[in-house]
Parts: sequence; C-alpha cells; structure tokens
Amino acid sequence: MNKYLKIAIEEAYNGLEVGGIPIGSALVLEGKVIGRGHNQRVQKGSAILHGEMAALENAGRLNADEYQRCTLYTTLSPCSMCSGAIILYGIHKVVIGENINFKGEEELLRSRGVILEVIQDLTCINMMSDFITKNPQLWNEDIGLY
Amino acid sequence: MNKYLKIAIEEAYNGLEVGGIPIGSALVLEGKVIGRGHNQRVQKGSAILHGEMAALENAGRLNADEYQRCTLYTTLSPCSMCSGAIILYGIHKVVIGENINFKGEEELLRSRGVILEVIQDLTCINMMSDFITKNPQLWNEDIGLY
Repeated sequence: MNKYLKIAIEEAYNGLEVGGIPIGSALVLEGKVIGRGHNQRVQKGSAILHGEMAALENAGRLNADEYQRCTLYTTLSPCSMCSGAIILYGIHKVVIGENINFKGEEELLRSRGVILEVIQDLTCINMMSDFITKNPQLWNEDIGLY
Repeated sequence: MNKYLKIAIEEAYNGLEVGGIPIGSALVLEGKVIGRGHNQRVQKGSAILHGEMAALENAGRLNADEYQRCTLYTTLSPCSMCSGAIILYGIHKVVIGENINFKGEEELLRSRGVILEVIQDLTCINMMSDFITKNPQLWNEDIGLY
C-alpha cells in the first residue's frame, strides 16, 4: 500500500479507537508528511475538523508555493468544505482512499485543475462501510444530512 | 445597519485589535446568534479558521435542519473553503458585507441554491481595503496567493 495513504488510514483508526468518525488525512510536501489529522466531530464537538481540515490545520501556515507542491492523502472522497479548502490553497493532487461510501466534490476539484487519484482501497472501504452501518446518524450529521 | 452584520463587524474588529485579519462572521438561527467568530490566521497560526469557519466552529454541532434555517453574516465575500462549508451544511442564506476587496465563490454558492445578499457596506469595504494596503503579504497568504 502507498505509505502516505497508510498514514491517513492510521489517522482514521486513531479517531475510531476513541469513538470518532474514522476519516484521516496526510498532507505531503515532496515526500515529507507536513500535516496529519483525523475527523474530530465527536472528540472536539467540531463541525469543521474533518480529516482533511485537521491535516491542513496541523500543517500550520504555509505559503502558496508550498501548498501548490503538496499532495493530500485522504481515506474518503472530500466533501464540499474540504474540497473548497483544497481549491483555496491550490493543492496540486489529492489521493483518495475510496469514493464508494461517499463521493464528494470530485467533479468540482477536477474542473479547477486538481489531479485526483482514487485508489478504492479495501481497508478504507470496509472501515467506512462498517462505521456507517453502525452509526448512520453520526455519519449523516458529518455530511450535513441529519 | 443590519444588527447581525454589525456583530460580524464587531468580530472583525476584535481580530484587528490584536493584529489579526479583520474578517468576522455571525451564524444566526431564527433571530438568535448561535455562533460568531473571526479570522485566526495570525492569532492561532490557523490555516482553516477564516471568519465564517470560526463562527461555524463556535456554533458547535448542529443538525441539518438547524443549519438549513440559518443565515450566515460575514464581512467579506466567502472564499472557496468557507463556501464549501456553507454548501456542506446547506446554509440557506449568506449576507455579505462587501465583495469589492475580494469576490469569493458567489457563483458556485448561487448555483447550489444558496441565497446571497451583498450589502457593500462602507465600514466593511474601508476596513478591508485599509488592511490589505497595509498587509498585502498576510492577506495574500490568507487567500492562497502568497
């Protein structure tokens, strides 16, 4: 498995272990992980700390040139908010663990020139599918449907 | 002046007073301010706490029905990230202080059914214009251009 997607999955499991929503991300600049994080809805009562947002926040303030050379690895297809952040900062490429359980704003991202690679990784698919089956209400809250 | 836009402006000034980027927001549910905040790039080294995001975070976890009855007041036109968050949560209406110094994703928001009202409030325009003139680098960093 891609070693950076593996870090995103580790982050997702870090969340799951404490009762959180298992979505994790890693921001990688030229081979170096400069930010990583996972969804914090349950843990911090956060409406904005999705996995991707948590990784961006963890990376701290970067300049445009740095963002534009980054690849963001995430276990699940990015929602509107996270896609908007990717567009704002001009992140070059997003590697998506899976988009079967949820397909976010992939068309919008592509239309803005972001390169997407969808892995359909079985660990990501099963982790999310299992979580959604057991926690439909929490999951729907996270994507604005409940 | 609209009393909720006034709260967003107060938030922007709260940021400005401590050396931050003067953009503030208020989330209003049926006449009640349930979240308010301002840009925290300087204060918290945050890449994600724009004014709108800070107000959403301050409101805490809401359900979809609540978000859909909310109006978000913000001193400046929402960037891609904040617009994505507005779309994610299905916020009904956004009242924008001004879009002269920066025009965000207004077309995208409208295309997704969000009602926009642009005030072109002189306090908002002058506050932002003055800040950008004095801090071009910081401002460009905030919108992913530096």
